[in-house]
Amino acid sequence: MQNSIISDRLKPYLGPQIYTQFTQLAIQKECVNLGQGFPNYPSPQFLRQAISEEALVESLQYTSTSGLPRLLKSGAEFFSKHIGISIDSEKEISIGAGAQTILVSVFQAILNKGDEVICFDPSFDVYKPMIEFQGAKQIGIALKIGKWNNKEEMLRKFENGIFRQDKEDIWKIDLDSLKYHLNDKTKMIILNSPQNPNGKVYDQEELDQLADILENYPNVVICEDAAYHHLPFGDYEIFNYPRSISHKRLSKKTICVISAGKMFSATGLRVGFAIGPESIIKGVKAAQTYHLFCLNPIMQAATAKSLELCMDGQYFKEKRIFYEKQAQTLLKGLVESRLNLNYMVPSGGYFLLTDISNVEIPEQYFIHPDTKETLSRDFAFVYYLANEFGVVCIPMSPYYSDKRIGEKLVRWAFCKTDETIQEACRRLK
Amino acid sequence: MQNSIISDRLKPYLGPQIYTQFTQLAIQKECVNLGQGFPNYPSPQFLRQAISEEALVESLQYTSTSGLPRLLKSGAEFFSKHIGISIDSEKEISIGAGAQTILVSVFQAILNKGDEVICFDPSFDVYKPMIEFQGAKQIGIALKIGKWNNKEEMLRKFENGIFRQDKEDIWKIDLDSLKYHLNDKTKMIILNSPQNPNGKVYDQEELDQLADILENYPNVVICEDAAYHHLPFGDYEIFNYPRSISHKRLSKKTICVISAGKMFSATGLRVGFAIGPESIIKGVKAAQTYHLFCLNPIMQAATAKSLELCMDGQYFKEKRIFYEKQAQTLLKGLVESRLNLNYMVPSGGYFLLTDISNVEIPEQYFIHPDTKETLSRDFAFVYYLANEFGVVCIPMSPYYSDKRIGEKLVRWAFCKTDETIQEACRRLK
Repeated sequence: MQNSIISDRLKPYLGPQIYTQFTQLAIQKECVNLGQGFPNYPSPQFLRQAISEEALVESLQYTSTSGLPRLLKSGAEFFSKHIGISIDSEKEISIGAGAQTILVSVFQAILNKGDEVICFDPSFDVYKPMIEFQGAKQIGIALKIGKWNNKEEMLRKFENGIFRQDKEDIWKIDLDSLKYHLNDKTKMIILNSPQNPNGKVYDQEELDQLADILENYPNVVICEDAAYHHLPFGDYEIFNYPRSISHKRLSKKTICVISAGKMFSATGLRVGFAIGPESIIKGVKAAQTYHLFCLNPIMQAATAKSLELCMDGQYFKEKRIFYEKQAQTLLKGLVESRLNLNYMVPSGGYFLLTDISNVEIPEQYFIHPDTKETLSRDFAFVYYLANEFGVVCIPMSPYYSDKRIGEKLVRWAFCKTDETIQEACRRLK
Repeated sequence: MQNSIISDRLKPYLGPQIYTQFTQLAIQKECVNLGQGFPNYPSPQFLRQAISEEALVESLQYTSTSGLPRLLKSGAEFFSKHIGISIDSEKEISIGAGAQTILVSVFQAILNKGDEVICFDPSFDVYKPMIEFQGAKQIGIALKIGKWNNKEEMLRKFENGIFRQDKEDIWKIDLDSLKYHLNDKTKMIILNSPQNPNGKVYDQEELDQLADILENYPNVVICEDAAYHHLPFGDYEIFNYPRSISHKRLSKKTICVISAGKMFSATGLRVGFAIGPESIIKGVKAAQTYHLFCLNPIMQAATAKSLELCMDGQYFKEKRIFYEKQAQTLLKGLVESRLNLNYMVPSGGYFLLTDISNVEIPEQYFIHPDTKETLSRDFAFVYYLANEFGVVCIPMSPYYSDKRIGEKLVRWAFCKTDETIQEACRRLK
């Protein structure tokens, strides 16, 4: 049996993901890994303790496919309180094994063959195969890029120990392009806010504009990927920033996807939530029955306990301060580096983007070390960085339908310890 | 947003599964629940202890999508040793969040639109939607039913405290029907052995016959659903009974699906394995990347620890004795019951089937209590049983493409405590 046994849908995706590829490179070259977005510090002791305790008392048998009532209740209470909405724990919330399985259930519940799903690029590269596997099509619309700042411009923005974000620095939806691409086949728009990889937070004005435009397309669902909803920076209130799930005119057509693992700095937890109208949650629950069946009850109970423990939100407020500090520290290190980059201040999340247009990359890095294929500028940059600086980041052409834009960009993860970020900065200086 | 938002593929599957439906009925009517197949006794202390300990030390971040190397190594070692094959832990084994997510990965990795998948009915009812969601089609071929035995015949088989299984009692593949349905579209045959719901173990002769027939169809893959491979009864050796994954001519075209949760009487564990040729495992790993991403590392480490602890197989040998005893006890209770059933001795697994053709079911139970729809005989029987005997079992028409066969059958789970089985028998007497 050869590769021919593999289904057509999967053939383009048999190779390792960029995260695996560059984590392996980081290990091989002993690099500081600012590639994959996982915290490299311990997850909170209260979560570990809860798992450890529940392991001895909680049942280890099937739970309802919708989830343990306790977890649904804690989730509904926490998100109602902090997002500022009202969630019925029986009808308007479901759980899954991480945000990714929730996305699968959402796509499976809603998308038919031939449907179109709009993503605002740069957009998380796994959306595309997950959408395609349902027979639907991803339509990537590039966001209007905010103003790139060179080193001197960045230094002028540095005040009281932090880089100031100016209005002109912010990425915006290209409304004309959105209107152009909307049609009767459009079934869904994915809104990832704060956004991976560019740290954009969609603002109230943009959501209002979106609501206006969607009045002509009443069947379009918004999938709000809120994996980083605990991490909008600056003046934004955590959880309760401008978002689709709490927007007056959008909430009823929004299904919101949440990662408990990301919230608790524990990407291996594999517990997530979907919140939204009963009509969609019903489908999400049914879809989940046929690909996941149910979740480990110990992880469900421990997540419920942790949410209950953090019900006042204080834990997340402190974490936000930490992440924002890491973002600023890494940004400072990049600005002070030998690399001729262009910069922007992120508005939230785990990542920041830089423009690599002006970096002089030696010819040799444009050839893949093993396959000898010609590499695009962003991939060449990552090999250059790994080999000559001992640091790994992530190329951004996979995040763009229009590869020419992404080839000029790379992503840096700042969800790392002080030591890791300092060591990366030292190597880049 | 109404139900119209739900995708076409999911619309037929929005209602609750039969397991949920009848577990709810059991709770509502305070019945003994012999419906859903989960053990109602504690899972082993060594597994709980391992989870509790790993929670405090194991990382809680993403693992490789293929799984923790330690778990892959333990799994490869355990299954190599006990099945009697040789598994490369890097290339020939993968993990998933329970056997069901493994099945999703297998189907997604192999099935194209229009492909046909042959199942031997009665077959686990969730195969159908999972196959359909890939755009493929399930072809249910009914097994030739072994000889049904009435009460008197069963009592004659009762020797030394157990019911003897005779050759004529065993279900067989209908080879003519199989040959008739095989064609160029056939991509896969599912072989569930020991089989849910009828406890059939496919024997060496049948596997040889299958190998002969498949010589004309070299592209057909066998998906061996081995969820109950630790529970073949009687003379069969656990793990190492006649099976496709270790068959001389079939092993290279077999992908075997294993449930660690079922093996450790912990259906909520949500850890499973796929073993098979590199060409398929590669696809299974890639598919998993896009629906599950990775598994909880604590559960992975605890499963590895438990497999290492049970490497000599002794734990499973003792468990098999327990399950076989439960099967015999339940069978005895059913034979001695007031119900005019027909019986067969199962060869393994969690379940036994009975024929309900001769049971006189009052008219009223042929009408659904809420929807007022007309019910088939098997569904009517379950309502009759719940209401008049206080016991719940599972109707079998959902396990058959040809519903007329399944309407005469119900499934009883014996993966229950002595107390539960005794109480059910008492109520049925």
